[in-house]
Amino acid sequence: MHEFIKDTLVKKLNNPILKSLGDSAVINYKQSLAFTTDSFVVSPLFFPGGDIGKLAVCGTVNDLLMLGAVPEYLSLALIIEEGLEKKTLEKIIDSVAFYARKSKVKIVTGDTKVVEKSNADKIFINTSGIGRIIRDGLSVKNIKPGDKIIINGNIAEHGLSVLAKRKELDLGFNIKSDCIPLNNLIIPLLKWDNGIKFMRDPTRGGLATTLNEVAQGSGLGIVINERNIPVSPKVRVACELLGIDPLYVANEGKVVLVVDSLKAKGVLAALGKNRQGRNAKIIGEVIKKPKGRVVLNTILNTRRIVDMLMGEPLPRIC
Amino acid sequence: MHEFIKDTLVKKLNNPILKSLGDSAVINYKQSLAFTTDSFVVSPLFFPGGDIGKLAVCGTVNDLLMLGAVPEYLSLALIIEEGLEKKTLEKIIDSVAFYARKSKVKIVTGDTKVVEKSNADKIFINTSGIGRIIRDGLSVKNIKPGDKIIINGNIAEHGLSVLAKRKELDLGFNIKSDCIPLNNLIIPLLKWDNGIKFMRDPTRGGLATTLNEVAQGSGLGIVINERNIPVSPKVRVACELLGIDPLYVANEGKVVLVVDSLKAKGVLAALGKNRQGRNAKIIGEVIKKPKGRVVLNTILNTRRIVDMLMGEPLPRIC
Repeated sequence: MHEFIKDTLVKKLNNPILKSLGDSAVINYKQSLAFTTDSFVVSPLFFPGGDIGKLAVCGTVNDLLMLGAVPEYLSLALIIEEGLEKKTLEKIIDSVAFYARKSKVKIVTGDTKVVEKSNADKIFINTSGIGRIIRDGLSVKNIKPGDKIIINGNIAEHGLSVLAKRKELDLGFNIKSDCIPLNNLIIPLLKWDNGIKFMRDPTRGGLATTLNEVAQGSGLGIVINERNIPVSPKVRVACELLGIDPLYVANEGKVVLVVDSLKAKGVLAALGKNRQGRNAKIIGEVIKKPKGRVVLNTILNTRRIVDMLMGEPLPRIC
Repeated sequence: MHEFIKDTLVKKLNNPILKSLGDSAVINYKQSLAFTTDSFVVSPLFFPGGDIGKLAVCGTVNDLLMLGAVPEYLSLALIIEEGLEKKTLEKIIDSVAFYARKSKVKIVTGDTKVVEKSNADKIFINTSGIGRIIRDGLSVKNIKPGDKIIINGNIAEHGLSVLAKRKELDLGFNIKSDCIPLNNLIIPLLKWDNGIKFMRDPTRGGLATTLNEVAQGSGLGIVINERNIPVSPKVRVACELLGIDPLYVANEGKVVLVVDSLKAKGVLAALGKNRQGRNAKIIGEVIKKPKGRVVLNTILNTRRIVDMLMGEPLPRIC
């Protein structure tokens, strides 16, 4: 274990704070910070477009960005099932290291526990993160009727990718997870006065769950237009085959933005210039009533309530 | 799940930051901070003197204290095996809440994942922590030959308590874990100029592992005197029966301090005034050679090298 920590972990995640090999890290701060945690139990460990290591970095990095923070420091805690192949573990750590570099975060503290066979499933990863807040006041409390709802691209790709791989579904095509750190998309948006009031990443439970949380948090309603919600043809086909509503499927590279109506087009244009935002759309707006509810205008011109997901979302999708 | 989070978690861990139910927490900082993470996979979940919830708070709180920091914020991430009894979960969360209050930390962000039966073992908990550093410069780099090694009390109680409970050993007596948050012992020590150069909590791998880490980190040697190392009679008997060396058994309420020789007695006296330090002892000192090694003067007046533990320490002790 000591060898694994020194040779594999510390080398691959190379930075001076981690190198000191203390139990904790000392870091300097002179302002507001964001703090978040997530455990990752995704099954299978590898899927088209990502793996548990990439996911563990992106998930926490994106959570920090949503708070108006530049992600800076991550912790990395591994729970490993006895018998996990060294090669698999190294591949995962390589992925953690690669995406930590890509999203400019330092992994400064860590922990490794091993449990007996069949007391875990290969590997679980927890990352906690600290970010420096550069945009204050992002809050559901600032949302007003008329504010526009924007999403940066196609929904439901992460969840479907993992599900298809897990069930070894032969869809005749691959669905790639959208898992990606959103630094390049979000950080520039934090730096100018553009009417963004709130952001959240629609992960577990998908777009529907996030919009319900926004509606409940703000005490207002939300109406979205099905025809404006970006869904790739592959995802549409897969969802129909599987009988799954893409609104409830997890994303790992998406952000829902609530933006002042007068400034929504400016934000949309800014998003469109970035690779992660080129398919961005205004999908709806905030309304007074029904309070705390999400209404969908369907393609068939009917209206229905989009409820909070009942029961568990797809298990072990992240 | 949503109900569990709202009704059980948020209520029991009550504080305004967590209540906002965002994915992350926003906190204010104007100085250096300490950041640490630990996963807890202890088996069984309940043992004399503690449980996984108490352990998850104490472990991370104590790690922060060791860096000269006042523990302030904790994250709490649960990985729950399907079928865990609600009553058990609530008992654990009660314990987390109780010891968070006791050690004056706020749990400001969290995460809950559920995995299928036999893909985890009841519950695993990760806590990450942030503390405000009030004592700068605690570092193995400051250690010099002649510095004294102090421990605040009896060793090996946590590991033996868990082991005895797990194996249902009938020792004829109970060994109680020493698991406790050390705030009341450590924070006062951070506030005056008392020659403390370094602190570490001898958890997994026990006192022997911690001393080896200090020796290796400082590039100096350490000599300890067996007759001065505090071990309770019960632990001594249990270790003899089980053929275990108490030097390698985990502690969860102990601290190893390296202190300037001229000031060691002052620190010892200060420790002795506290409940968690009334059995504190000077157990040895730093020497020039052998570099990076720990030497034990035994009760029989022989000398032997105390090596780094080979292989895994007792599994799932924390």
